[in-house]
Amino acid sequence: MIDYNVLGGKCNRGLSVVDSYKLLKGADVLGEEELFLASTLGWCIEWLQAYFLVLDDIMDDSHTRRGQPCWFRVPHVGFIAVNDGIILRNHISRILRHQFKGKPYYADLLDLFNEVEFKTASGQLLDLITTHEGEQDLTKYNITVHRRIVQYKTAYYSFYLPVACALLLSGENLDNYGAVENILVEMGTYFQVQDDYLDCYGDPEFIGKIGTDIEDYKCSWLVVQALECADESQKHILFENYGKKDPACVAKVKNLYKELNLEAVFQDYEKESYKKLIADIEAQPSIAVQSVLKSFLHKIYKRQK
Amino acid sequence: MIDYNVLGGKCNRGLSVVDSYKLLKGADVLGEEELFLASTLGWCIEWLQAYFLVLDDIMDDSHTRRGQPCWFRVPHVGFIAVNDGIILRNHISRILRHQFKGKPYYADLLDLFNEVEFKTASGQLLDLITTHEGEQDLTKYNITVHRRIVQYKTAYYSFYLPVACALLLSGENLDNYGAVENILVEMGTYFQVQDDYLDCYGDPEFIGKIGTDIEDYKCSWLVVQALECADESQKHILFENYGKKDPACVAKVKNLYKELNLEAVFQDYEKESYKKLIADIEAQPSIAVQSVLKSFLHKIYKRQK
Repeated sequence: MIDYNVLGGKCNRGLSVVDSYKLLKGADVLGEEELFLASTLGWCIEWLQAYFLVLDDIMDDSHTRRGQPCWFRVPHVGFIAVNDGIILRNHISRILRHQFKGKPYYADLLDLFNEVEFKTASGQLLDLITTHEGEQDLTKYNITVHRRIVQYKTAYYSFYLPVACALLLSGENLDNYGAVENILVEMGTYFQVQDDYLDCYGDPEFIGKIGTDIEDYKCSWLVVQALECADESQKHILFENYGKKDPACVAKVKNLYKELNLEAVFQDYEKESYKKLIADIEAQPSIAVQSVLKSFLHKIYKRQK
Repeated sequence: MIDYNVLGGKCNRGLSVVDSYKLLKGADVLGEEELFLASTLGWCIEWLQAYFLVLDDIMDDSHTRRGQPCWFRVPHVGFIAVNDGIILRNHISRILRHQFKGKPYYADLLDLFNEVEFKTASGQLLDLITTHEGEQDLTKYNITVHRRIVQYKTAYYSFYLPVACALLLSGENLDNYGAVENILVEMGTYFQVQDDYLDCYGDPEFIGKIGTDIEDYKCSWLVVQALECADESQKHILFENYGKKDPACVAKVKNLYKELNLEAVFQDYEKESYKKLIADIEAQPSIAVQSVLKSFLHKIYKRQK
């Protein structure tokens, strides 16, 4: 169960704990013990991700994940997958206890994982009640709703959590890093907007999946922008065709996106986000912290997958 | 969601934190702050129970719980219930952080809830893979399997957890209470054996539900005893009829239980368990701890529901 669900991803989140810790310490190479502890926290984030994915796939009734059937679809697994998700989550607490109990930051580490998990579950709840069939209503979609879902569901655990782990490992008090948290959550938001964009405009060969946000009635950044720019007749097209499996409906939505020039709106958003993030990062007093944040930003800026 | 799932039970587990804490302190009345903290831990256990029940009902495909439809069967809820379960669990960590962060036993409290949750999930896993359709095989059922499921799935969170909470609140180190843990886990086992017995022999009017352990192919203490006492032809009856919805099959199993005199086997087990538990309790050095354990035992001894 662990091999099936924890492995198979790119390990970006886990690896960035180690990378961030190196940058914070200003060291190219870590000692054996330090590397071990940083890697342990990295794996904890990968376990957390596995836990979310196992349960999200059940709730979203998904079919495949990382190129294989979703865990609950594997023969003899079924709804035992709910309990397996719980067990993955419990492993994190046990790994932390085995490796960190007694460290001065142990309670802060537990609080961090708990709080980030709660934020992610809250984001998932927002997403589920917004996208939920039977409740479907495009008038509810706007940029505030989109931001809220994205920040809670993705940004905290994908962007803030790895850096917060590295900061705790460096002996820092997270209460002093509110501005860093905000920057990372903004970066996570930008990352998810890219994801929404690539779902429609990315090369399926290159990103390794075919986007279905339009069919799935997702509160995507693209539909939010479309709703904002559209006139009444264009809105009518969206209301009639968004969230339908019929390829003709999907094509009508995509045509409308083209008409509204959403590609250019995105390029503009990307440029502005980058400028704002760089300015916020350079306002940070610590050069080491700046380098952590910039390293994150440059990994994702103008990404094609 | 919280009102629907946390309320409606008897609150035995939650209340026993307060009762145990009073007995440990030797006080009839607690100060306002002490009562508040003990009650908070009691509610955390009720939240934990709610979390387990919401998810277990999904995994077991149950219909009703505490006299109302299971949460996932409520219109518009469905699989969002998985996420609601997670949110209930996350609340526990947040309640503990708000009320206990800074206390010397804060990290131990988090560890306790995490470890008990892991044990419970492990018990649920054992139960699911043993009872699972398609894997059904009576030859796997024996008293060792039964004990393992019961202790992990029920005893730790129902019996050990409330007392462990009261001990931490009293400033005790749980490492010194291994014997108390063992006694409470034994008591939890005895409690579940009663449950299995009452499922078949209890008065449905009085216990408020109709037992279906035979139909559900449960690894009940009764079937384990039956398998142990049965001769080859009686075993054949069990193999042919256990786990079938057909009332005629259920009746054949119940007849066999009567033939094997399982009622008397249970009375004997009950008497022996009580004797052994009392002896172990009276070997405890602390009279206050003895009174906590005896109070638990006398709440459940010879219970009819």
